[in-house]
Amino acid sequence: MTFRVAVAGASGYAGGEALRLLLGHPQVSIGAVTAFSSVGDTLGAHQPHLRPLADRVIEPTAVEVLAGHDAVVLALPHGQSHAVAAQLGPDTVVIDCGADHRLEDPAAWQQFYGGEHPGTWPYGIPELPGAREQLRGATRIAVPGCYPTGASLALAPALAAGLVRPEVVVVAASGTSGAGKAPKANLLGAEVMGSVSAYGVGGGHRHTPEMVQNLSKAAGQPVTVSFTPLLVPMPRGILSTVSAPVADADLSLGEVRAAYEKAYGDEPFVHLLPEGQWPSTASTLGANTVLLQVAVDAHAGRVIVIAALDNLTKGTAGAAVQCLNLALGLPETTGLPTVGVAP
Amino acid sequence: MTFRVAVAGASGYAGGEALRLLLGHPQVSIGAVTAFSSVGDTLGAHQPHLRPLADRVIEPTAVEVLAGHDAVVLALPHGQSHAVAAQLGPDTVVIDCGADHRLEDPAAWQQFYGGEHPGTWPYGIPELPGAREQLRGATRIAVPGCYPTGASLALAPALAAGLVRPEVVVVAASGTSGAGKAPKANLLGAEVMGSVSAYGVGGGHRHTPEMVQNLSKAAGQPVTVSFTPLLVPMPRGILSTVSAPVADADLSLGEVRAAYEKAYGDEPFVHLLPEGQWPSTASTLGANTVLLQVAVDAHAGRVIVIAALDNLTKGTAGAAVQCLNLALGLPETTGLPTVGVAP
Amino acid sequence: MTFRVAVAGASGYAGGEALRLLLGHPQVSIGAVTAFSSVGDTLGAHQPHLRPLADRVIEPTAVEVLAGHDAVVLALPHGQSHAVAAQLGPDTVVIDCGADHRLEDPAAWQQFYGGEHPGTWPYGIPELPGAREQLRGATRIAVPGCYPTGASLALAPALAAGLVRPEVVVVAASGTSGAGKAPKANLLGAEVMGSVSAYGVGGGHRHTPEMVQNLSKAAGQPVTVSFTPLLVPMPRGILSTVSAPVADADLSLGEVRAAYEKAYGDEPFVHLLPEGQWPSTASTLGANTVLLQVAVDAHAGRVIVIAALDNLTKGTAGAAVQCLNLALGLPETTGLPTVGVAP
Amino acid sequence: MTFRVAVAGASGYAGGEALRLLLGHPQVSIGAVTAFSSVGDTLGAHQPHLRPLADRVIEPTAVEVLAGHDAVVLALPHGQSHAVAAQLGPDTVVIDCGADHRLEDPAAWQQFYGGEHPGTWPYGIPELPGAREQLRGATRIAVPGCYPTGASLALAPALAAGLVRPEVVVVAASGTSGAGKAPKANLLGAEVMGSVSAYGVGGGHRHTPEMVQNLSKAAGQPVTVSFTPLLVPMPRGILSTVSAPVADADLSLGEVRAAYEKAYGDEPFVHLLPEGQWPSTASTLGANTVLLQVAVDAHAGRVIVIAALDNLTKGTAGAAVQCLNLALGLPETTGLPTVGVAP
Repeated sequence: MTFRVAVAGASGYAGGEALRLLLGHPQVSIGAVTAFSSVGDTLGAHQPHLRPLADRVIEPTAVEVLAGHDAVVLALPHGQSHAVAAQLGPDTVVIDCGADHRLEDPAAWQQFYGGEHPGTWPYGIPELPGAREQLRGATRIAVPGCYPTGASLALAPALAAGLVRPEVVVVAASGTSGAGKAPKANLLGAEVMGSVSAYGVGGGHRHTPEMVQNLSKAAGQPVTVSFTPLLVPMPRGILSTVSAPVADADLSLGEVRAAYEKAYGDEPFVHLLPEGQWPSTASTLGANTVLLQVAVDAHAGRVIVIAALDNLTKGTAGAAVQCLNLALGLPETTGLPTVGVAP
Repeated sequence: MTFRVAVAGASGYAGGEALRLLLGHPQVSIGAVTAFSSVGDTLGAHQPHLRPLADRVIEPTAVEVLAGHDAVVLALPHGQSHAVAAQLGPDTVVIDCGADHRLEDPAAWQQFYGGEHPGTWPYGIPELPGAREQLRGATRIAVPGCYPTGASLALAPALAAGLVRPEVVVVAASGTSGAGKAPKANLLGAEVMGSVSAYGVGGGHRHTPEMVQNLSKAAGQPVTVSFTPLLVPMPRGILSTVSAPVADADLSLGEVRAAYEKAYGDEPFVHLLPEGQWPSTASTLGANTVLLQVAVDAHAGRVIVIAALDNLTKGTAGAAVQCLNLALGLPETTGLPTVGVAP
Repeated sequence: MTFRVAVAGASGYAGGEALRLLLGHPQVSIGAVTAFSSVGDTLGAHQPHLRPLADRVIEPTAVEVLAGHDAVVLALPHGQSHAVAAQLGPDTVVIDCGADHRLEDPAAWQQFYGGEHPGTWPYGIPELPGAREQLRGATRIAVPGCYPTGASLALAPALAAGLVRPEVVVVAASGTSGAGKAPKANLLGAEVMGSVSAYGVGGGHRHTPEMVQNLSKAAGQPVTVSFTPLLVPMPRGILSTVSAPVADADLSLGEVRAAYEKAYGDEPFVHLLPEGQWPSTASTLGANTVLLQVAVDAHAGRVIVIAALDNLTKGTAGAAVQCLNLALGLPETTGLPTVGVAP
Repeated sequence: MTFRVAVAGASGYAGGEALRLLLGHPQVSIGAVTAFSSVGDTLGAHQPHLRPLADRVIEPTAVEVLAGHDAVVLALPHGQSHAVAAQLGPDTVVIDCGADHRLEDPAAWQQFYGGEHPGTWPYGIPELPGAREQLRGATRIAVPGCYPTGASLALAPALAAGLVRPEVVVVAASGTSGAGKAPKANLLGAEVMGSVSAYGVGGGHRHTPEMVQNLSKAAGQPVTVSFTPLLVPMPRGILSTVSAPVADADLSLGEVRAAYEKAYGDEPFVHLLPEGQWPSTASTLGANTVLLQVAVDAHAGRVIVIAALDNLTKGTAGAAVQCLNLALGLPETTGLPTVGVAP
């Protein structure tokens, strides 16, 4: 059986990655590709790597274009998904890569995004406790933010097992595609190559409440998160360094590894590496994988978890396809690469 | 039907890329993975991006390990393929990513590689005139060098159509994976990032005679090639700028485009871009594609062709799998990506 | 004696580099720093690397601000210098980093820039034959384009000595700062990192007539130039590969080296490397140097010259300061670095 | 007055940077340049960016070569400085860029480096409380590690002022020159470009005890440090994210800024940026500066400090020259750049 899937926001990075993955999906045919300012252009002019779609003409992101598909992937700027989704029928599967429907707490929404809370959809990290069940057969799914994906998967098992105290420090280094394709001077190649910088320091980044939401659920108690995002000179990838104080000074590495093996041992996309191997983002490039490694620092009394993922794949569009599979009742791994493109 | 394929040189860049592609090949099962110095290690320790093979143990590159496969891909240092291939049965398909069997002229071999000429195998650029027929069902195939692939596909149509004089200038910018995985100080990240340099200038690069061979065949007359390779700060990709003097001062862009459309219009992997679009290597990352664009410079009296490809995919391991398909009687495109991973 | 120098266009890349160099100049005090859209901002907000000027406030680029300085460096978008310079007194030294006054041929100006030819100023590559004399004491100087600097210095000696035929092929790989600081989607870090592309292929780049002008003078006859610029993933630097057919099939490397040693042996900023060493752009980063190496390809019958420079230093702002020194009667090397920042 | 200074380890990155800075020092003449494996080569073959020294011949690192200089900068692999320094006269100023004499605690030395503790020299971060006085006129100085420089300067003021609890988390992203010039496969350009990875996670990195030593002194009590180093794709630069829990839940940003302004307001090389500006490593490239910014996260209850520096300049060789100035009784800033090379 083949499902017809439209992608809105097809000229951007998330939309391009969604199309790349859907092109490799054996049970998907790509329907409308839509955007705003590039309507009428060929897709080849904006996404030259998507050769099989090079001659496709970009249509407007409008309900009459998107209607009639089995599913629609929304890769729109934050705040635009809600209005589009509201016009699509309840049987159409809508996978939203934007932030509109991720947060449960209206106050957090108000503080970080402003305006009225557009409501909450099932949240698309199937590997978190209890999440997968809510995604199967869902017709509305909120794809998580790229940073929360890494941070949440990195520390949820330790919090769930009570191995660490709920005071989390996240420093995550991201490639610059995470900032999108809208031209800004600080994102020019000449600015970012050869340079690392921090931004949104001190709790201001919009992905912070999403981490708090996920990790508090995992911990079963309120968690604080200190989150510092770094911009590093590469196109893709996030390496998250996530740590928290040990709950017990005698915590052993073996106990920590056991908690992660229990949590992810059967997961197809999340992998605890063997001892002695450390994740690199290149190993996940273009793949829907998260690679993890854990350490216990006895001197500092902390558990440190390193998580590598591709912000556009498992961090956005890969997660979208994984959720699409769950929504459509397909095997969850259908069409999703687990092999990175390296070096 | 499934073919069992071994990869020798599995810990290097070409071998890793061959395994990446073979993992996505629907009619291949991966047999032995072999190497020299890393025997006994898991593949995961050397190729962490190949998750499904992470636990495979690397075996020695020896005839008793390689024998019994339907096909063997050799990704060995230049000069080592000949001896290994000689021990494999004549029915075993051997695809050699090394240089050993590319050159037809023993004098050129002697000049550029030294020692006795190990003989010539069918040459693996199916898109060159007459090449595809020699590759179908062959049991020994020489995969071309990465630079010759770009340069040859870039100018063969113009030479074959008599549009340019046989005096070719090639300047090709390559990512550093082309230099292999053996550690050298001049290939350290700190040396290559933020820097471009030339090497092998003035005719010394070993890929020069291969270009001469290919382009002379296409031209039907002896061709000279001035080849300058550049090392640029990226892991993968080659952008070739290939030019030659026009044969006729009135040559129009339309005539040139017509020659390329005729040559490549039906090819699944080689594409002339629409006017106004220029190839970038990122568009071919991880794909088996070559993207071309052509220009005619009336002032200088030259045809200029730009060719982008991934040196590890269409430039090496993708070509190997394409040739493997031809050797095994499979559809030529089986298992080969035409979608790049960008940005 | 100290000269007071203003910089117009202080928030851009060329202006920032001019300020960096002037900060290290022992006989310059920095006067007004001016710009358009960033008027009123501190310089620290736009050029955070210029610590000693961090608190300077950016003034408007207006004649009343620029007047009264001993010299003014114009680092403005092409086409804006002429009007500004016309308002400055004839005794004020004006160093124009823009293209407005480089070309001597009105037809070439019309073809490549359009509009009325704004006239020609002394051209600021002192190392070209006869150029230095015209720059000493001049009050209006046109700083050359970054690409023409490399290409002209690379081949002028061979053309002047009659060693090559006047049919020049230039392929030059540039860091992305050459494209300026105005935000464009194709210059985003995510687009340029990991990718090489060509642009302006086939004679369309505006620096082509400037190369033709310089090299024709050196050759004493009309020269054709086929110029292909490449965008490579680094912030700064140009590596030019410049070649031409040998005039005499017996031309030896020694003859070529002798011509370059004669041309540049006494130059403080242009260096022919010892045999066996090849230039890298990193070796010139932040320095006012051009590093050259030459080769003779007997098979292809060409002389190939590789030239490395920093597009913002010797390619723009360093040349501006070098010319400023000549204009002000100072030793030509005053305040100019010859040491690169590497790795 | 001019001092004659030798550099041992002149073919490596730290030695090269020391020579770059000493070339710009108005009161230094460069004496012997020495190394091990490259003895007899010209310096130009190993450090092509140091044009004025290109013809210098590398001598062996031996006491008879190094003796007779006013000062010697040792840029040797860890563990080799002690033996060399022991043979130099007590009046010769010895500036050691290696780790041999940094640690005061023999147990920490034994744990992280092994073997007998070679003793402690005055520690070369003049900006730390009480440090400058010990460096003036000293004849033996231990240059700090690159990571400890950033982390210590980042948090010392907050700890000294009692604003945070002594439980420090450091995540520092470094360019790959920090790993040195010895060729290793994991440092190849193809491995590091496009990738971020962590190493030495969990307390294993040798710079950890140096941070503990510095920050405990600043705090006046024992401090724990959780240190995670990241390798990022750039040649130079370190961006440190350093945080600790607030001592008082009501701590305001103003209080924190006041502590840093008090600590560094008069420092020529360490700068707290204005509110709203965040440090980038590019702003410090080639300069002896550290750029800082601070934030208070009320939700997470932490102070976060971002510090940018160039690991080879203020992180190694710039600190060496700064210490040399103090040792020789020169103004501390002599010859040291405060202007970075950007973009």
